[in-house]
Amino acid sequence: MDFLKNDETVEDLQYKNLKIIQSKEGFRFGMDAVLLADFVKIKKSERVLDLCTGSGIIPILLYGRKTAKKIYGIKIMPYVADLAKRSVELNGVEKSVEIIEADIKNATEFFNKPLDVISVNPPFEKANKDKMSENEYRAVAKHELLCDFCDICEVSEKLLKFGGRFYLVHRVTRLTEIIETMKRFNLQPKRIRFVYTKVNGKANLVLIEGLKNGKEGLSVEYPLFVRDEDGNYTKEIHRIYHRSEES
Amino acid sequence: MDFLKNDETVEDLQYKNLKIIQSKEGFRFGMDAVLLADFVKIKKSERVLDLCTGSGIIPILLYGRKTAKKIYGIKIMPYVADLAKRSVELNGVEKSVEIIEADIKNATEFFNKPLDVISVNPPFEKANKDKMSENEYRAVAKHELLCDFCDICEVSEKLLKFGGRFYLVHRVTRLTEIIETMKRFNLQPKRIRFVYTKVNGKANLVLIEGLKNGKEGLSVEYPLFVRDEDGNYTKEIHRIYHRSEES
Repeated sequence: MDFLKNDETVEDLQYKNLKIIQSKEGFRFGMDAVLLADFVKIKKSERVLDLCTGSGIIPILLYGRKTAKKIYGIKIMPYVADLAKRSVELNGVEKSVEIIEADIKNATEFFNKPLDVISVNPPFEKANKDKMSENEYRAVAKHELLCDFCDICEVSEKLLKFGGRFYLVHRVTRLTEIIETMKRFNLQPKRIRFVYTKVNGKANLVLIEGLKNGKEGLSVEYPLFVRDEDGNYTKEIHRIYHRSEES
Repeated sequence: MDFLKNDETVEDLQYKNLKIIQSKEGFRFGMDAVLLADFVKIKKSERVLDLCTGSGIIPILLYGRKTAKKIYGIKIMPYVADLAKRSVELNGVEKSVEIIEADIKNATEFFNKPLDVISVNPPFEKANKDKMSENEYRAVAKHELLCDFCDICEVSEKLLKFGGRFYLVHRVTRLTEIIETMKRFNLQPKRIRFVYTKVNGKANLVLIEGLKNGKEGLSVEYPLFVRDEDGNYTKEIHRIYHRSEES
C-alpha cells in the first residue's frame, strides 16, 4: 500500500519504531505535542480522546508511551483526518488508535459512554486574519478558526466522566483566560507545569491537568527547562524525546 | 520614648538601619513579606497602600527599598496597628509612612483620590476553627477571619486608579481561585512569579502583579528558587535580603 500523497513525508519518531506522516507545506508537529504526550497520565483501563488531533501525533505518541484501553483522535478537516488515519495504518495500530473525521462540537455523537481522559494541543492564537498563514491547514492549526478554547472546554465537559481528566498545552500569555474558562466548564485546574524554552527567560508554554468536578487546590510542579545555561537541551528533554520506559 | 511594650522585641532589618517591632507571641514576618516587597514596582510619584499590614513590615521595607511619594498601611486590630505606628516612629519615617487603624472594608473613607499601587500579604488560609492558633493575632494573620480574598479585591478595585497596580503574595494551592477573583474585580493578572522554597519541589508561593482594567496577557517570570541544590540560599535570596541598591 502506498501511504504517501503529494508532498508528504514520513518521520521516524525514534521510539518503538513508530512513524508519523506529515505534509511538507502543512502544519508539522512541534515540541508542544511531545511535551503534552509526556505530561498526560493514563491508566490501563482508560479510554482517551485527543481533540484537534491534526496529523495524529498525540494519539500515536500516547500509544507508544502509555498504556491505554483505547485512544481516539478527532479532526474536522478531511485531508488531515485522512493523513492521520494513514499514519495509524502505517504503524499497524488500528486496534488501539482510531481517528474520527468530525467537528469536535459534534463529538458526543461518536461516544455512547463517558471518556476517562481528554488531551488537546489546540490552536494557540485567536483568529486574526492579518497574521494568518495562507496555507489553510497551517492557519487552522495555529488560529482559532474552526473552534476556540471555549468550544474545547464545552465539549470536554460533556464527554468526560465525573472525575475525568483534561490535559492541555497552551501559550502562557493566555493562562488567565484558560483558567477562567476551564473553571466555567467544571474542569478544575489541579496540576500545572511551566515550560521555559529560553535560558533565564520567561515561561513560554504551560501544561495543565484539569479534573472534571474537581475542587480548588492547585499544584505547580518544578519547571521544565528546555535548555541548560550553555544552550544545550537538558537531561529532561533528552529523557522525554528518547525515553525507553513506560511512565 | 519607650517604644516597646510587654513581650515585644526590635528586629534590625539589616538595611539602611531600619527596624521593626514585633511581638514574641504574635505573628512575626516571614520570607513572604520580604519577597513581596522586592516584587513590587513603584515610581517616585506614586501613592501606595499596604492592606492587612500587620506589624507594618511591608510599608517599612518598601520605604527602604523603593522610592514612593507616600506609603500607607492599614490594619484592623488596634494593638497591631499601634505596634506598626510605633515601628514607624522608631524609624523616624512618619512623613513617608502612615499607619491607619481601620477595617479594610472601610478604607475608601481615608482616601479622597485614587491610589497608584496596592500591596497585600493576606491571610493564606480559609477560616478553619480546628486548625487555628489560640493566639488571636496569629489566627487573624493566618486565617481569613476578618477579611477574605474577595473583600481584598473588592476594596482594591474601589481604591485604585484606572491602570493602578495590585501586588500580592499568596499560597500556590489557591491560585485558580485568586485569578478568578482578581478578574472578577477588574484586577487583571499580568505578571506572575513562582517561588520554590524546596530544592526540586513544587512551587509554594506565588507573587502576582495585577493591573486594574488591564487586558488579557500574562507573563510568567523565571522562577525564584530559595535554595540551591546543596540546600543553601541562592544568590537571588542573598540579593533580596541584603541588597544595597534601589531597583
